[in-house]
Amino acid sequence: MEVAASPFRSTRTNEGERREKRTALLLAAVRMFNERGFHATSLEDVASSLGVTKPVIYHHLGNKEQVLFECVRLGLEELQHGAEGAKATPGTGLDRLKTFLCSYAESVMGDFGKCVIRTGDELLSEQSRVDLRAQKGEIDHTLRAMIEDAVADGSAKVSDVKLTAFAFAGALNWPARWYRPDGQLDRRDMAHRLVEVLCSGIMPHSAQ
Amino acid sequence: MEVAASPFRSTRTNEGERREKRTALLLAAVRMFNERGFHATSLEDVASSLGVTKPVIYHHLGNKEQVLFECVRLGLEELQHGAEGAKATPGTGLDRLKTFLCSYAESVMGDFGKCVIRTGDELLSEQSRVDLRAQKGEIDHTLRAMIEDAVADGSAKVSDVKLTAFAFAGALNWPARWYRPDGQLDRRDMAHRLVEVLCSGIMPHSAQ
Repeated sequence: MEVAASPFRSTRTNEGERREKRTALLLAAVRMFNERGFHATSLEDVASSLGVTKPVIYHHLGNKEQVLFECVRLGLEELQHGAEGAKATPGTGLDRLKTFLCSYAESVMGDFGKCVIRTGDELLSEQSRVDLRAQKGEIDHTLRAMIEDAVADGSAKVSDVKLTAFAFAGALNWPARWYRPDGQLDRRDMAHRLVEVLCSGIMPHSAQ
Repeated sequence: MEVAASPFRSTRTNEGERREKRTALLLAAVRMFNERGFHATSLEDVASSLGVTKPVIYHHLGNKEQVLFECVRLGLEELQHGAEGAKATPGTGLDRLKTFLCSYAESVMGDFGKCVIRTGDELLSEQSRVDLRAQKGEIDHTLRAMIEDAVADGSAKVSDVKLTAFAFAGALNWPARWYRPDGQLDRRDMAHRLVEVLCSGIMPHSAQ
């Protein structure tokens, strides 16, 4: 693997640069986890892709499980930011729901979002699982609440909110397994088109 | 783990019993892969759950990667049988599509189907991947063809067949990650309800 542009070339050590180094390490790690899988990824390889040694990763992030935890946590944070942004969108409940679903789908095709979906519970320690479960629960709760709001203002019609949320989340999580950024559609387009396909089923007056 | 009823208690060795032993080994293995993950599963544990030793597994199935390959292959075979059965269903194209989607979703919540979905490509050898890719491609092709047939006979209306197939497959694959047989709905009910949620979006005249 070629050595990428690396903030570790610099010897400066202020807070901003520490953060920059941490981010670079996490990005290199998450890409390797997504591509090779957690078990086939070594922190040596992650470190050497940035021209540093393994102790640098230990120093900034901890051991391999801790690095994975942090990648998943960042992915969940991105999904939550998407939800917050969508809640503030003007328009109908369905408009807000679509905005959330689009940002969700886009995140899930990105580096950290992909890692949320690809990381099986069995890879994380019990403590990490507990820590992440609350974040996951909040996202699921937001999705259901948005579907309910869309039903309440008449912009959507749904017979089973919980199952609709499962179906939507599943359809949007799946691209984490197959989406390649070098494909025909960029992830924004892909996200929008998937959301249109899904939401055509909950429009109260079918436009078809 | 408690020692389950095991065909290895018998010393008979005719063809039928060889098959029975093989099936018991595969079922014990796939359940452990699904529950603990491939890396955390040892063939020793699989063997001892049936009261046998690891060489028995080598004899019947080969090494751990070969066992995983066989589990995924069986899962894909089950999905393909579902497709064949659905093709022979009377009614409209949409009826056949729903029959296929229901059997697909049910399989994916079962032991071998779950393993198809949970097994990342990175766990398999290049040769295994090539062998399984053809089977996966056929299933994907069948799904698209069924959507097209439903559009052709007017029982469904779909603007983007490929993306609809992706969305449907994703929504139905996802339960492989969260479905627990001890939940409120059995997998047949769960499958039917998910398929109704999805297909409400492609009905030409919305019943809502």
